[in-house]
Amino acid sequence: MKKFRAAVVGYGNIGRYTIEALQQAADFEIAGIVRRNAADVPAELAGYKVVTSLKELDNVDVAILATPTRKVEEHALEALSLGINTVDSFDIHTKISALRATLDAKAKEAGKACIISAGWDPGTDSMVRAILQACAPKGITYTNFGPGMSMGHSVAVKAVDGVEDALSMTIPTGEGVHRRMVYVQVKPGYDFEKIAAAVKADPYFASDETHVMQVESVDALKDMGHGVNLIRKGVSGKTQNQNFRFTMSINNPALTGQILVAAARAVMRQKPGCYTLIEIPPVDLLEGDRDWWVSHIV
Amino acid sequence: MKKFRAAVVGYGNIGRYTIEALQQAADFEIAGIVRRNAADVPAELAGYKVVTSLKELDNVDVAILATPTRKVEEHALEALSLGINTVDSFDIHTKISALRATLDAKAKEAGKACIISAGWDPGTDSMVRAILQACAPKGITYTNFGPGMSMGHSVAVKAVDGVEDALSMTIPTGEGVHRRMVYVQVKPGYDFEKIAAAVKADPYFASDETHVMQVESVDALKDMGHGVNLIRKGVSGKTQNQNFRFTMSINNPALTGQILVAAARAVMRQKPGCYTLIEIPPVDLLEGDRDWWVSHIV
Repeated sequence: MKKFRAAVVGYGNIGRYTIEALQQAADFEIAGIVRRNAADVPAELAGYKVVTSLKELDNVDVAILATPTRKVEEHALEALSLGINTVDSFDIHTKISALRATLDAKAKEAGKACIISAGWDPGTDSMVRAILQACAPKGITYTNFGPGMSMGHSVAVKAVDGVEDALSMTIPTGEGVHRRMVYVQVKPGYDFEKIAAAVKADPYFASDETHVMQVESVDALKDMGHGVNLIRKGVSGKTQNQNFRFTMSINNPALTGQILVAAARAVMRQKPGCYTLIEIPPVDLLEGDRDWWVSHIV
Repeated sequence: MKKFRAAVVGYGNIGRYTIEALQQAADFEIAGIVRRNAADVPAELAGYKVVTSLKELDNVDVAILATPTRKVEEHALEALSLGINTVDSFDIHTKISALRATLDAKAKEAGKACIISAGWDPGTDSMVRAILQACAPKGITYTNFGPGMSMGHSVAVKAVDGVEDALSMTIPTGEGVHRRMVYVQVKPGYDFEKIAAAVKADPYFASDETHVMQVESVDALKDMGHGVNLIRKGVSGKTQNQNFRFTMSINNPALTGQILVAAARAVMRQKPGCYTLIEIPPVDLLEGDRDWWVSHIV
């Protein structure tokens, strides 16, 4: 069987776990890793091509974009112009439609396909939300996150003057409301109380219950576990009180890397265009033959 | 907006709830109801065409087959030969592949589409199983059912000599293992102990822990509530102990009727052929515009 050749663009946490997921997937081989500094080759990448541009890799079927979210569009457009399918875990919910429109036009022009926002939220949680919407068209879905690290919120705190390192934990308090627990390591000579006030005033935190605490080492607190508790109560036909719940407790970048690899498989099975995961048949995410899955998992 | 015209074939519990779901769906209108005795028109069907054959209805886009499972193939083939798309909730897991192959050939010949096994299990649970398989390709999924009535098991008990009425409840005991609680109303002059022994020896029950109890009225025990507790623990990439759980507590025929209507919408959006729900993009199940859902639910 011909294997899909995947390139991984970006080598932070998600890139690292994406490589692990590719190594475990029998239908993929790793074409190479694209990173800003190609001379920086950690031990676990020995034997792989590490380059600074997709152009330097041969016969790439799909580029898995493990870059910061704000770099996704630029890298996706570049890959498409090289005739390479793309997947990413773009996670700014309010900008997904615009990214999809931009990449859809470019993908159709290139005769290739993209799957965007293919992490767990947006991503597989979105698929579950769509299924539950179909099961009970009237009602409310609450997506509760955590406990777990929020990358975006942590970065916002690190930008505050006097912060050496920071960690913002998302704690679910129910009905999609979240508490922020912020742990700050202060640079010598700075006033913690001023930092705490600046964090609470930041738009990232201003509308949530936020607690800021000073700690000696942020690194000592870091755990990549995360969770979701997604609840829908609604109406099927005219029948009220239909109750659904989806929960998970997972290593965050490991799950994201795995879903990116599943999406990389699915993107090869789509017509040219740009898609989100709710537009993809679940079976397309799975390795191997569709008929086999119909007889084994349906 | 032109509405989809749906016919409901069969008018038992599922047919009744399917009509309610159609009445609540703004994009559907009811073309009519097909049942063996078209003279039997209950009050809630006043104003609808009730007929004995699909042929008597005009401009039907989709036939929702709410017939017993064993009658699905016959009715689907008839509908396809009339140029009508079909959906059903065929629920014999081991025979889904064969039904799909038969209907796929016929559907392609007719230029129409079918979605089979579109209930909650097989059906939406199958979609969730496929998504979790993608999230953690190595691991075990357990689907625990109940507490709730099992139609198939109840029918098997009713077939035992001397049984006036019967109800078999499915109780989950974990890891996909189920206990059967069987409630039997005995006909005058029959020996309950003999009936209980016959039930326990039936292939439907022989491999499960089964308790048989005599009651005065089976009808007094009937509740159409059911539940699922679907668990997967597995490996994402090389990361162990990823935990997922999907639970629901629902009115069984109401959810089935609602999913059939969602599938009836989705079937109109597929190319000719026969599909199970894992082959359908979740967004196709939802009323209205794909772009709207991408910006609101992803």
